[in-house]
Amino acid sequence: MTADTREQEALDLIERVRARPPRFRDAQLTMAHGAGGKATLTLVEGLLAPALGIDTLDDAARVGDLAVTTDAFVVRPIRFPGGSIGELAVNGTVNDLAVSGARPLALTLSLVLEEGLGADELRAEVEAIAAAARAADVRVVGGDTKVVERGKCDAMYVTTTGIGAVDGRARLSVASVAPGDRVLVSGSIGEHGTAVMLARDEFELDAEVVSDTRPLWPAVDALLDACGPALRAMRDATRGGVATVLNEVARTAGVAVLVREAAVPVQPAVTGACEILGIDPMYVANEGTFVAVVAPEGADAALSALRGVPGCEAAAEIAEVRGDPAGMVLVETAFGGRRVMDLLVGDPLPRIC
Amino acid sequence: MTADTREQEALDLIERVRARPPRFRDAQLTMAHGAGGKATLTLVEGLLAPALGIDTLDDAARVGDLAVTTDAFVVRPIRFPGGSIGELAVNGTVNDLAVSGARPLALTLSLVLEEGLGADELRAEVEAIAAAARAADVRVVGGDTKVVERGKCDAMYVTTTGIGAVDGRARLSVASVAPGDRVLVSGSIGEHGTAVMLARDEFELDAEVVSDTRPLWPAVDALLDACGPALRAMRDATRGGVATVLNEVARTAGVAVLVREAAVPVQPAVTGACEILGIDPMYVANEGTFVAVVAPEGADAALSALRGVPGCEAAAEIAEVRGDPAGMVLVETAFGGRRVMDLLVGDPLPRIC
Repeated sequence: MTADTREQEALDLIERVRARPPRFRDAQLTMAHGAGGKATLTLVEGLLAPALGIDTLDDAARVGDLAVTTDAFVVRPIRFPGGSIGELAVNGTVNDLAVSGARPLALTLSLVLEEGLGADELRAEVEAIAAAARAADVRVVGGDTKVVERGKCDAMYVTTTGIGAVDGRARLSVASVAPGDRVLVSGSIGEHGTAVMLARDEFELDAEVVSDTRPLWPAVDALLDACGPALRAMRDATRGGVATVLNEVARTAGVAVLVREAAVPVQPAVTGACEILGIDPMYVANEGTFVAVVAPEGADAALSALRGVPGCEAAAEIAEVRGDPAGMVLVETAFGGRRVMDLLVGDPLPRIC
Repeated sequence: MTADTREQEALDLIERVRARPPRFRDAQLTMAHGAGGKATLTLVEGLLAPALGIDTLDDAARVGDLAVTTDAFVVRPIRFPGGSIGELAVNGTVNDLAVSGARPLALTLSLVLEEGLGADELRAEVEAIAAAARAADVRVVGGDTKVVERGKCDAMYVTTTGIGAVDGRARLSVASVAPGDRVLVSGSIGEHGTAVMLARDEFELDAEVVSDTRPLWPAVDALLDACGPALRAMRDATRGGVATVLNEVARTAGVAVLVREAAVPVQPAVTGACEILGIDPMYVANEGTFVAVVAPEGADAALSALRGVPGCEAAAEIAEVRGDPAGMVLVETAFGGRRVMDLLVGDPLPRIC
C-alpha cells in the first residue's frame, strides 16, 4: 500500500464519518458546546434545530421581506483592547445580517446583569451600544433587563436581535458554492480572539493586538456592487474562526476547500501570540472579518472592491474550492505538505464573544 | 387642618415628586433594578432609554409593518408547577406582541447555558419551547447558544425575540386612556409568581398554586373583535403585577386609576400564600393574564368576550379611570377606605420570570 493510497483511505473514512448526521449524546453541557466546533455542531444540528424545527442554520433567517438574527454575548472580560461587550453585541448581530445579504435596520437588546455591577460599567456599555448602533446606522428599538444575584452571571450577558432589509442584489447560498470558486477573507485574521485572551492577563504576554470589531455592511455593500451574482456566499468568521466557516462551506455544499496557508493574512503580533497560546489563528474568532466565496470570474473584482473599503485593506484570496474530497478542508502548507483542517473538538478560547 | 386636607396635601406632594423625570443615581445594580418597580423605572427611563434613543417603552416596537419585542428569562427554579423557563420564554414574548395588538408570527431564541447542565434538562426545555411555540402558532426561526463556566449562570438564561404582524383592528395607545374608561383583568391574578416562590421550597407552604403561563393571542383576538376602537390599551401583567401596569397607565395617560379591591379575582390559595409571604397579589407576576382598558361603551362586550375564551373565565372589571389625582393608583378597600397603590420599591419576589 502506497502512502498516497493510505492517505486516500484515511480521507475516505473521514468523509464517511462526516456524512452521518450529528447526534447529541453527551450527558451534560461542557464549555466545548459553546465553542463553535464539533460539540456545538452536535448540540445545534443534533438537538436544537430538529427539536425546534429550524431548517436554516444560516446567519440570519427570513421573516417576510426581512432578515432576522440573534446572538448572545458572554465575553470575558467585558472590556478588551479595541472594544467591549456592548460594541461586540451590536457589531456581531449587524454583521450576521450583512453577510446574509441584508442591510441592518434595527435591533433589540436584552441584558442580564449581575447584582453589584457598577453603575459606571453599565453606563459605559450602554454608551458603547449606542455609539456602535450609530456607527452601524441601526436603531435600537426595544429591550429588556433582568438582574440576577451576585455570582449568577459574570458582570453582564447581552443578547441582541437584529432585523435587516434583504438586499435585492444578493443571491447568496452556501449550497451554490461550486468547484473552481475562490475564497476570500476581508482582512487579516485572528485579532479579536487573541486580543480577548491577552486581556485576561492569564498569560504573561505583552503583544499589541486589538480586536477587529467593526460593522461589515459597508464591505458587503461594496462586494454586492462589484460582483453581483458571482458572489456565492458570505460568512462572518466569529466563533471557531475562518477554519470553522470553511468546514461549514465544505459540508453544506459537498465540496472540498483547499487553503494556501501562505496566502492567509495574519498580523505578526497575532502569529506570535497564537504560537505561544498553542492555537492556529485560523481557529481564532474575528468580529469584523468575513469569508466570501466568489465564482472565478468575479474574484478579481471582489478582491479589489474589498481592499477599497476602510478596514479591509488586507483582504486576500486564501483558498480555492475543489470537488474532492467532498466535505473537507485541506491546507497546503508553506512547505508543500497537505493536512486536514478539521472542526475544533474542545474549546481552546472560551468566552471570546 | 382637617384629615381630608392633609390627605390632599400628601397626594399633591406625591404627584409633584412623581412628575419629575426619573434619574438613575445608584452606584451599583441591585436586585430591585430587575424587579419591575421604581428602581427598574429609574434604570430604564433614567439611563437605558435616553442613552439608546428608545422613545417607546411599550411592550413591542414597530419596524415597518411588524411589531418586535424581546425578553430575557432568568426564572429560578427553571421548572415550577404549571410551566418552565422554556415555556415562559415563548409565552412571555408572544404575549408582549399580543397585548401590543400584533399577531405573533416568529421568534428567535438565545440560550446562555451553564457548564455541567444536564443534557436531559436542556432537552426538556428545548421541547418545552417547541411545544409552546406550536401552541402559540409561531415559528422558531433562529437562535444562538453560549456556554459559560459552572457557577457563572444558574442552569440557563433564555432570551426570546418575537416578531408579529400588526393587526388592523388595533388602535391602541396608553396615552389615549381617559376618565370614565374601565379596567379589566383577563383572569385571576398572582398565580405565576406565587407558584414560582412556592416551588423554591424556602417556605414551608404546601398551597396548590399553578402558574397561569399561556399564550394570550386568542384572548386579545376576541377582545379586538368585540370592542373595536373602544379598546384603548392592553398590558401584560408580568413583573410587578397588575399594580405596576396600573401605575404605568396612570403615569403615561396622566389619569388616576381607582381600583375596587373586592372586584379583583384572586384564587383563595394565592390569597393565602401571599398573606404568609407578606405580599399583595396585585404586585405578583402573571404570565398569562393581562390588563385591558376599555372605553365605557365597550366594557360589557369586552368582559363577555374575554369570559368566553378558555383560561379567561375569571375575567373581571376591577377599576375605573378618573381625572384626579393624575398619575396615581388608588384602591378602595373592602372596608370603604382608600390607599395609594404605588410602584414597588424593593424586590420581594426575585427572579420569577
